[in-house]
Amino acid sequence: MFIARVRGNVVTTQKAKAMTGRKLLVIEPLQLDQAGGELKNTGRCFVAVDSVGAGEQDLVLVTQGSSARMTETTSSAPVDCVIIGIIDTINAAAKTVYNKIDH
Amino acid sequence: MFIARVRGNVVTTQKAKAMTGRKLLVIEPLQLDQAGGELKNTGRCFVAVDSVGAGEQDLVLVTQGSSARMTETTSSAPVDCVIIGIIDTINAAAKTVYNKIDH
Amino acid sequence: MFIARVRGNVVTTQKAKAMTGRKLLVIEPLQLDQAGGELKNTGRCFVAVDSVGAGEQDLVLVTQGSSARMTETTSSAPVDCVIIGIIDTINAAAKTVYNKIDH
Amino acid sequence: MFIARVRGNVVTTQKAKAMTGRKLLVIEPLQLDQAGGELKNTGRCFVAVDSVGAGEQDLVLVTQGSSARMTETTSSAPVDCVIIGIIDTINAAAKTVYNKIDH
Amino acid sequence: MFIARVRGNVVTTQKAKAMTGRKLLVIEPLQLDQAGGELKNTGRCFVAVDSVGAGEQDLVLVTQGSSARMTETTSSAPVDCVIIGIIDTINAAAKTVYNKIDH
Repeated sequence: MFIARVRGNVVTTQKAKAMTGRKLLVIEPLQLDQAGGELKNTGRCFVAVDSVGAGEQDLVLVTQGSSARMTETTSSAPVDCVIIGIIDTINAAAKTVYNKIDH
Repeated sequence: MFIARVRGNVVTTQKAKAMTGRKLLVIEPLQLDQAGGELKNTGRCFVAVDSVGAGEQDLVLVTQGSSARMTETTSSAPVDCVIIGIIDTINAAAKTVYNKIDH
Repeated sequence: MFIARVRGNVVTTQKAKAMTGRKLLVIEPLQLDQAGGELKNTGRCFVAVDSVGAGEQDLVLVTQGSSARMTETTSSAPVDCVIIGIIDTINAAAKTVYNKIDH
Repeated sequence: MFIARVRGNVVTTQKAKAMTGRKLLVIEPLQLDQAGGELKNTGRCFVAVDSVGAGEQDLVLVTQGSSARMTETTSSAPVDCVIIGIIDTINAAAKTVYNKIDH
Repeated sequence: MFIARVRGNVVTTQKAKAMTGRKLLVIEPLQLDQAGGELKNTGRCFVAVDSVGAGEQDLVLVTQGSSARMTETTSSAPVDCVIIGIIDTINAAAKTVYNKIDH
């Protein structure tokens, strides 16, 4: 899995049947800097199905590949990327790098 | 999944049986710039099976890996990349980055 | 899938049983330049099982991952990369980028 | 699989049901320098489920993709990254690059 | 699959049950230079289960992903990388790039 920030959303009307009613969010993977103190943007983006009710700017946990079909929302769908959690805190090198309450 | 632009197509006559009759499109993955306001080319390309009737220059949603076999068009085929939707709008940072109607 | 050029071959005598009799080709993925007019080398290489009778210098269509096991040649084998088609033509931006007849 | 160092952890309360009770660790993949004598940081990070009781700063062995679901801890869960071992020693070019006892 | 050189090995005592008794080798993927005449190091490393009796400095053929579970040694194990062959020769551009006998 990887840490990502929700950047926006995508709307498609003409799509594979199994995708009907899925919320599609644009996410950007984040990295941790070497000192372990800060999250950094990567400039990359993916589109993930939301299975947990995430919103824009939330930090989320994202699963890729066949494992992305292992949620109730995505079972048997042509989905290779899913948000499986909203992150509350990230801790590294004995300190809190991110706390949802502060944002 | 990722956002891509349809760039062209590929024709193969000598191919695995299960691939007969599939439309093969050349796609280029796109990224969102840091400010979230514009889509950027990546210069990379893949070949995807079309399951939704996409055309050249369309912005599409693409699924990779085993999940690419989860559409009616690609079931049980040696396919690792499929177009599952034609994108209408992409929204990020509270504005519309792309609207199909404008193109 | 991706477009690749066949660069050579690999011979292994000591190998997993399921690999006996498979032709192993060295392939180099290709990209399309931004103007869409030319194919570019990437300098990377993979080894793919040939399921279609490809030869050196041919442009081929390559499938990766679990989907690479979806051909008769590769079923149930420890294979993650297979050639599923020999490319006749590649078209992009309303022109023919590659035509097998010219090579 | 790849070698990684445990850098920290992630806490999520709002998550996919199957993720309840899993310990989520932030890991950084490591590389071996060309001479084979030292491990190097990569600056990248992933989030992995811990199946072996790893702790911060441990060097661990990490499996990705569908194979990440092949442990008792991760079976049928939307997990694409799992820690499957705590590394005792790494040997390369006839010397010991890493020994857990020294750390 | 890809071509790699065996660089060393990894020892883990605390690990997922299914991993007991597996030999874990550190491998470095290799590339072919553009002229097709020489193999180049990449500086990257992975850990692969050995299914063929490979030794340090051998050139090997490596399979990744779910296909890595398709050998007798790795079936149902949390393994995403396996050595499936020891390379005897690599031929490219009508010459022999590598011959095991010479090493």
